[in-house]
Amino acid sequence: MIRFYAPDIDKTLTLPESDSGHCCRVLRMTTGDIIEVVDGKGNSFQCRITDAHHKHTKVDIISNSVEAKHWIGRLTLAVAPTKNIDRMEWLLEKAVEIGIDRIVFLKCERSERKDIKNERILKILVSAMKQSMKASLPEFDGMVDFNKFLSEDFGTSQKFIGYCSSEYPKLQLLKEYNPGTDAVIVIGPEGDFSPNEIKNAVDNGFKCVTFGNTRLRTETAALYSLTNIHSINEYTELHKIK
Amino acid sequence: MIRFYAPDIDKTLTLPESDSGHCCRVLRMTTGDIIEVVDGKGNSFQCRITDAHHKHTKVDIISNSVEAKHWIGRLTLAVAPTKNIDRMEWLLEKAVEIGIDRIVFLKCERSERKDIKNERILKILVSAMKQSMKASLPEFDGMVDFNKFLSEDFGTSQKFIGYCSSEYPKLQLLKEYNPGTDAVIVIGPEGDFSPNEIKNAVDNGFKCVTFGNTRLRTETAALYSLTNIHSINEYTELHKIK
Repeated sequence: MIRFYAPDIDKTLTLPESDSGHCCRVLRMTTGDIIEVVDGKGNSFQCRITDAHHKHTKVDIISNSVEAKHWIGRLTLAVAPTKNIDRMEWLLEKAVEIGIDRIVFLKCERSERKDIKNERILKILVSAMKQSMKASLPEFDGMVDFNKFLSEDFGTSQKFIGYCSSEYPKLQLLKEYNPGTDAVIVIGPEGDFSPNEIKNAVDNGFKCVTFGNTRLRTETAALYSLTNIHSINEYTELHKIK
Repeated sequence: MIRFYAPDIDKTLTLPESDSGHCCRVLRMTTGDIIEVVDGKGNSFQCRITDAHHKHTKVDIISNSVEAKHWIGRLTLAVAPTKNIDRMEWLLEKAVEIGIDRIVFLKCERSERKDIKNERILKILVSAMKQSMKASLPEFDGMVDFNKFLSEDFGTSQKFIGYCSSEYPKLQLLKEYNPGTDAVIVIGPEGDFSPNEIKNAVDNGFKCVTFGNTRLRTETAALYSLTNIHSINEYTELHKIK
């Protein structure tokens, strides 16, 4: 069943304009038809259309269910966006498909891209959520200053930064990560972090890690490291490895 | 250092036309300059330009080295290409970056795309190889009939097919895969495999597996499952889990 997105459906009982248009004009659904509406907060509603309108379709809620989270740990991915925005949009789509709790775009000293269109990002996140049959959107911060991000309180999360230099011990993410724990992964810009930024990250408890022995593009490193963590969490759970 | 690709550099001592153009016209390198040339078979050559020509640059080989493979197991990914070819090109780039031994495009009953431009694919593979600092290209088969592929002899490889239906036990790739072994992963078309195709796969020793509890696009499933295997192999090696 096609999913529709309406963040306040339980209060408004109305689909937003874009989803109303898709529902009534594109899919030609009409009064009495049953649709599924998600609110991006983990709730999924079975609804009956009471007024099929191409701009504000009204519905009644028949039933609702709460989505069970399908991955382990709270996972935050913070990445300095690439100059080529397509690569970031691709990353967002894939990250939502495989599972992510929070996405942050970082403004670093050597960032080639210092701004981002938040509405465009939200559109991609919503589309990936619907397509992968989810009811939750990841938290999304927009552009955040790198040093400000570092100073956040991440509680008991393990904090990793993708960086390799002879100044710091060469650690492997897959060796350092403790299965089941929350994690923050930081991926730098194409021109890499500055020495000051790395020092600040290490001072704030981030571990410099690499992801195997190959050179990865920014968006590949982000998706690869996120998948590493999902893999280890699933593997250790399936095999009951403590 | 920029890498150049010349599959028979040790015999011809000449860069092909495209790389000659890139070297001499774009990068303005000239006689006496030192360049690195890879042959796509795992060999990397340090060369000195003896005749800078925009179509057939001549070189002398100063030294050569053989690339150490940076991942575990021989990994084959066979995927039915999506209608949107960009998604496949993206997959190829990422698969080469993270490590893959062989890529096969499958022609299935319900394939939306039945052909593919082999030269275009090779170009993407070469570009990803250079960009990720490798000297090896994966084997690439072009389009292969699904049932023909199934009948190949894969030796001691574990064989997996991404498929989920109540007719077959629901197995998890991360539970079934034995770390360190060679693996073949098969990913179907957007319209899924036909019942006959699945029966034929199972008869040929393929295990039907899923990759966690989320719905993934074709190209995401391919990259995710490949990364699952890399992750488990690295994790068990780093932690000495047998």
